[in-house]
Amino acid sequence: MKQIAILGSTGSIGQSTLDIIRRYPERFRVASLAAGRNVDVAFEQCVEWRPRIMSLATEELAAALSKRLISAGVTGIETVHGTAGTVQVSATPEADFVVSAIVGVAGLEATYAAVQAGKTVGLANKEAMVAAGEILTAAAREKNVPLLPIDSEHNAIHQCMRAGEKREVRRLWLTASGGPFRNLPLRDFANITVEQALKHPTWVMGRRITIDSATLLNKGLEIIEACRLFNLSPSAIKVTVHPQSTVHSFVEYIDGSILAQISVTDMRLPILYAMSYPERVESDLTFDMASLGQLNFEPPDFERFPCLRLAYEAAEKGGAHPIALNAADEIAVEAFLAGNIPFIAIPRTIEEVLEATPENHPATIAEVLTIDRDAREAARNKARKFTHASAVL
Amino acid sequence: MKQIAILGSTGSIGQSTLDIIRRYPERFRVASLAAGRNVDVAFEQCVEWRPRIMSLATEELAAALSKRLISAGVTGIETVHGTAGTVQVSATPEADFVVSAIVGVAGLEATYAAVQAGKTVGLANKEAMVAAGEILTAAAREKNVPLLPIDSEHNAIHQCMRAGEKREVRRLWLTASGGPFRNLPLRDFANITVEQALKHPTWVMGRRITIDSATLLNKGLEIIEACRLFNLSPSAIKVTVHPQSTVHSFVEYIDGSILAQISVTDMRLPILYAMSYPERVESDLTFDMASLGQLNFEPPDFERFPCLRLAYEAAEKGGAHPIALNAADEIAVEAFLAGNIPFIAIPRTIEEVLEATPENHPATIAEVLTIDRDAREAARNKARKFTHASAVL
Repeated sequence: MKQIAILGSTGSIGQSTLDIIRRYPERFRVASLAAGRNVDVAFEQCVEWRPRIMSLATEELAAALSKRLISAGVTGIETVHGTAGTVQVSATPEADFVVSAIVGVAGLEATYAAVQAGKTVGLANKEAMVAAGEILTAAAREKNVPLLPIDSEHNAIHQCMRAGEKREVRRLWLTASGGPFRNLPLRDFANITVEQALKHPTWVMGRRITIDSATLLNKGLEIIEACRLFNLSPSAIKVTVHPQSTVHSFVEYIDGSILAQISVTDMRLPILYAMSYPERVESDLTFDMASLGQLNFEPPDFERFPCLRLAYEAAEKGGAHPIALNAADEIAVEAFLAGNIPFIAIPRTIEEVLEATPENHPATIAEVLTIDRDAREAARNKARKFTHASAVL
Repeated sequence: MKQIAILGSTGSIGQSTLDIIRRYPERFRVASLAAGRNVDVAFEQCVEWRPRIMSLATEELAAALSKRLISAGVTGIETVHGTAGTVQVSATPEADFVVSAIVGVAGLEATYAAVQAGKTVGLANKEAMVAAGEILTAAAREKNVPLLPIDSEHNAIHQCMRAGEKREVRRLWLTASGGPFRNLPLRDFANITVEQALKHPTWVMGRRITIDSATLLNKGLEIIEACRLFNLSPSAIKVTVHPQSTVHSFVEYIDGSILAQISVTDMRLPILYAMSYPERVESDLTFDMASLGQLNFEPPDFERFPCLRLAYEAAEKGGAHPIALNAADEIAVEAFLAGNIPFIAIPRTIEEVLEATPENHPATIAEVLTIDRDAREAARNKARKFTHASAVL
């Protein structure tokens, strides 16, 4: 029986993880949960799963939850809050496996704490590896803790890498759906609306990641994540645009063999894979091979999607640059979603922030968070000048 | 340094194997060779590779070779012949790895001898596994000898199976190019000419295997081979038609993940893989991922390609039936290539031979060869009635 701690239990990955636990009660049980501000869902999860600890974002929310649990006669759940709360959840002694699915850098400390506590970590939080990949992988090596990717691309790579040794990998090929603007002419990028950008062709996801898929910055973050997770140089990570999102990624070996992974586009599959690794567990998440039909692949266009180039540059520099890339993008995407800046100002904002970012290799999570905060501040300033001013571009 | 014995050294697989040995002189060297009737090429191979033993089909051919070697001042090569000769080659004490690439059942005894002698065997000879798969795999288990497939589909499966445990495999998907008649309407099958049938869309191969690709009987033999090699039931082996022959096969795991292998269509790659397994060795046999373009997949048509159904039926029955399937096909294809029977008489001949084959599970190679001989005799009789008589069909 594996006991699971979930960082981000009320989000999409958290709920998918709970669905997997619900399907395999003989294999998994909930140890502890960390949510954000959604007290209603957190309460329901406490009633259903009886975690030993439930963390919420603030003291007030935790108190409100505690009160409702007492009224409902639910006992034995410790309610905690804030960063210290998430750290308590991820370091729960009972937990064997920690799902790191808090979006953004908010989950960083708890993810680091899980590694330090010797837990196996399932990484759904891309930012953790982008912002603190060097620190997390060093800690994981030291503690001999596996970091298992539970996003579809890196999970695919993890699977394909089992067909050889790490030293036998020549390069990786991340697939990208290409987003909604794969075929849009460059001249029309200036007029992209929020509504258009939120329509992802194959995956239903959160708002930021959907915009990141439209700019291909999301693929850029995945390039950096892949460098860290698999200890490869940025030049060994390639991208191929694959509109059907059926092949989740490829691993190319030194002998010329290429392994690929295919499955339904359902996050429960990589979650199940990571939670049961090194075993595989029977599931009904079956891909219908008769539906394979036609698969297309084409090289990405760096001119229409400059975020891809920016990500490679940040990956090459390492240290502060991937942190700044991620932070600046989050601010720029917020500004775009708020209708404050045009779509094409997203890469412009990121580029200006990166240019102003000094070379710096943080050694602690605290230093990472400082660089992150500074980059956000810089991004707010840079974004401001693109406000309602597409003429500037 | 691995020492290699090659059964079928002057054929296409044999020459590709020698090319690999030529490219990696620090890893591989030739121990012994077995050829058929081509004394000229056998002589050249003796001069270049200095095998300890060279076997030819007959005593006369071996004597002729011996004479030429003496004239050329090439010493230290023992010339042998016949089945005993091939057995001597495969059991050479120096050999670590035996490439089994003699076409047809002629290579059976030598392949079995290699397993008995504890050599690692690379199987390019499909018929060995089809006709004597049960005997060979039992012997390999007993001697703890790996049987490594070096045809592209099973080699792909071998690679994909490294991403999980044997018990975690739900089914295999063999890719088939579909051959030249993939889109030919059923009513036109009666008029297929030898010339049309010899035009394979993606691979350049021998005459029998090219016709077998046109009838899909080749894929049928591969289904049986896969059952034996990977110890799976016929219902766990599926076929998907993939005209580009880029994906060489798929393994579907119980969790729903599907692994696929892609590479250039060059037999040197699976040969190199098998010879260097469990390592992978750097090669320039690189697949250009930018050329991936479009891949298509569709279910096979059992009506136009009855050989596929016949193969599944023979696989289910096991024992004598796969032997008879292979033997009858070889005779029927010969008759078709000689212009004696029409294309559609190939499956008809096989079906009639299978119907007349008694249930029988041979325990020795000698018994296999008897069943094979009887089935050939039966096939000759059955084929005769289709001679110049498409009206009968």
